[in-house]
Amino acid sequence: MKIQGVAYRSVWVDPDDGFSVHIFDQTRLPWALEVLRLTGCDEVAEAIVSMKVRGAPLIGAVAAYGLALALRVDSSSDAMERDAARLASTRPTAINLRWAIDRMLTRLRNTQAADRVRVAYEEAGLICDEDVAQNEAIGRHGLALIEQIANAKRAKGGEQTVKLLTHCNAGWIATVDWGTALAPIYMAHDAGIDVHVWVDETRPRNQGAALTAWELGSHGVGHTVVSDNAGGHLMQRGDVDMVIVGTDRVTRRGDVANKIGTYLKAAAARDNDVPFWVALPSTTIDWTISDGLTEIPIEERSAAEVTHVTGRASDGAVTSVQVTPDGTGAANPAFDVTPARLVSGLITERGLCDASAAGLAAMFPDFA
Amino acid sequence: MKIQGVAYRSVWVDPDDGFSVHIFDQTRLPWALEVLRLTGCDEVAEAIVSMKVRGAPLIGAVAAYGLALALRVDSSSDAMERDAARLASTRPTAINLRWAIDRMLTRLRNTQAADRVRVAYEEAGLICDEDVAQNEAIGRHGLALIEQIANAKRAKGGEQTVKLLTHCNAGWIATVDWGTALAPIYMAHDAGIDVHVWVDETRPRNQGAALTAWELGSHGVGHTVVSDNAGGHLMQRGDVDMVIVGTDRVTRRGDVANKIGTYLKAAAARDNDVPFWVALPSTTIDWTISDGLTEIPIEERSAAEVTHVTGRASDGAVTSVQVTPDGTGAANPAFDVTPARLVSGLITERGLCDASAAGLAAMFPDFA
Repeated sequence: MKIQGVAYRSVWVDPDDGFSVHIFDQTRLPWALEVLRLTGCDEVAEAIVSMKVRGAPLIGAVAAYGLALALRVDSSSDAMERDAARLASTRPTAINLRWAIDRMLTRLRNTQAADRVRVAYEEAGLICDEDVAQNEAIGRHGLALIEQIANAKRAKGGEQTVKLLTHCNAGWIATVDWGTALAPIYMAHDAGIDVHVWVDETRPRNQGAALTAWELGSHGVGHTVVSDNAGGHLMQRGDVDMVIVGTDRVTRRGDVANKIGTYLKAAAARDNDVPFWVALPSTTIDWTISDGLTEIPIEERSAAEVTHVTGRASDGAVTSVQVTPDGTGAANPAFDVTPARLVSGLITERGLCDASAAGLAAMFPDFA
Repeated sequence: MKIQGVAYRSVWVDPDDGFSVHIFDQTRLPWALEVLRLTGCDEVAEAIVSMKVRGAPLIGAVAAYGLALALRVDSSSDAMERDAARLASTRPTAINLRWAIDRMLTRLRNTQAADRVRVAYEEAGLICDEDVAQNEAIGRHGLALIEQIANAKRAKGGEQTVKLLTHCNAGWIATVDWGTALAPIYMAHDAGIDVHVWVDETRPRNQGAALTAWELGSHGVGHTVVSDNAGGHLMQRGDVDMVIVGTDRVTRRGDVANKIGTYLKAAAARDNDVPFWVALPSTTIDWTISDGLTEIPIEERSAAEVTHVTGRASDGAVTSVQVTPDGTGAANPAFDVTPARLVSGLITERGLCDASAAGLAAMFPDFA
């Protein structure tokens, strides 16, 4: 997508040296647009752990390049398996990471050591291109839902703006391009539909306030940031036509792991008959598990993310401030699971389907 | 309640000069415990608007003293009505403010101008003493609920800690003493029951992270701060035995206005069969309205409360940092309404009752 008129992807190989991997440091957004150059597996692992790159699909793509960088140092099978395991363990909840590493290994185990670097870059490039194509398809299928709402509003008269609520960041910088939850919104905006997005702040790391607001603003999509507490009230007063979020892992029966707080919005959406849709490429589906509440590991992150907030002080310096009394303990589960029964449907690259075992199996008979 | 062993109320008249009103500046907590001396109606109004004093019951008590201070300057009926209206308009959602001013006027309209200052201080003092007595009674009735949970856990074996979740601050500094939602928790702790409190951060003003954590820590009650997003997940994994919150206004049929985000916790509590209780003195009931969603005015506060967060920087300075990109708009509804159907029950000074017209009428036949 574009930043001030220039098209970017969120990960790319340096066109000059042909091996180093470039990403935006997402911990610096929206204050600075800094490109990081990653030249080794260690740097990639650190970038994922510290959330310089984040977003389930993007983590998978960057980790694939991380394995390519590792192979440049040692392309033996032992080293490859060790480095792959290390990259796969950087974050526990998003399944795309494991999927991307497995895909790389499947191809590389059948490749001679001498050819592995070349093949690894080729496969990581394919993962990126396929992610872009999948997200574009998600955007088209999701656009149809937004068009339906717009048409219904036109028929009814009155307020015409389609009001969408999203949580965390499932935009283009969470993927290689387009995004998942935001892809339909970008397409609706580009198609001239009057859309407005309620952006959940998404404490504790504020991916909504910092990243989604930045993305939407950069592209010119109308939006308003609200505290995570506000969404239910907005639904109650009829100001949300549809909730649309991304996901880090979907089980074979349609349970959805996503950023902590997603489940609260799903419960409120059900209470107000607001459609609650989840956008995902099929790489986010974990076909090996059914019950999201018991089978998806939930990452527990540092208490400091809760006790402190980072932002820009009046002197322009990016500063971390403590919001709790000294010595106060904090817990920080980073994801929650929305049971399939609360999900109106899934927006996949193949189309819309029910969040159920039957719905997923009918859409993906080749995987189910 | 006590701060480092010394007992305080959250509002008191200066014992030396006999007229100025002392409060804690709650915008400075937990960083500093500063006592403000208010000497006139303007200062009182400003303290309420800027939330130096907040919490529905405390606002009412302080506004009552504000009228007493105003009468010291001009005790004519015209001035009294004007100053009363001004104080009543400082915050729109909490009903205790209007109740306290109405009670003051009812007594003062039947008092000669020359006697009004003395009578106003006397009546404001009665309001305070009654608030303390009501909250103590709320504490006793709520304690019975916590004891029930503790007894059930003892009979069942396993984890014995009673885990409570609260939102915003409905503690002693939101009232004259004891608090509403926290009164039962303080009494349970003092009675030796093993309680642990999940404290919602309560963005955008962080009353949970700043005030409730400070109160509980000062009294020695075990607690953990979590982002507002985490409560549903905690309930899903069985880590919340009961939600207990305060309220700014309850309708005659039991709809509950409280800090924004309360409704999300109520919806999640229902989805997980977790009891959701609301603690209030009867002064918080608005007998003139039924439908909370359409009849309670919801205060819209400054966007800056959402776009900025205040905390303590590493150099010790209390600092405000911007968390959104430049120019990003924000909405800030300060309260939401939890429909009575999601409320397990009300904890009042007279006992426990259903959140329903019948429940409230049976408990308060003299008001209903």
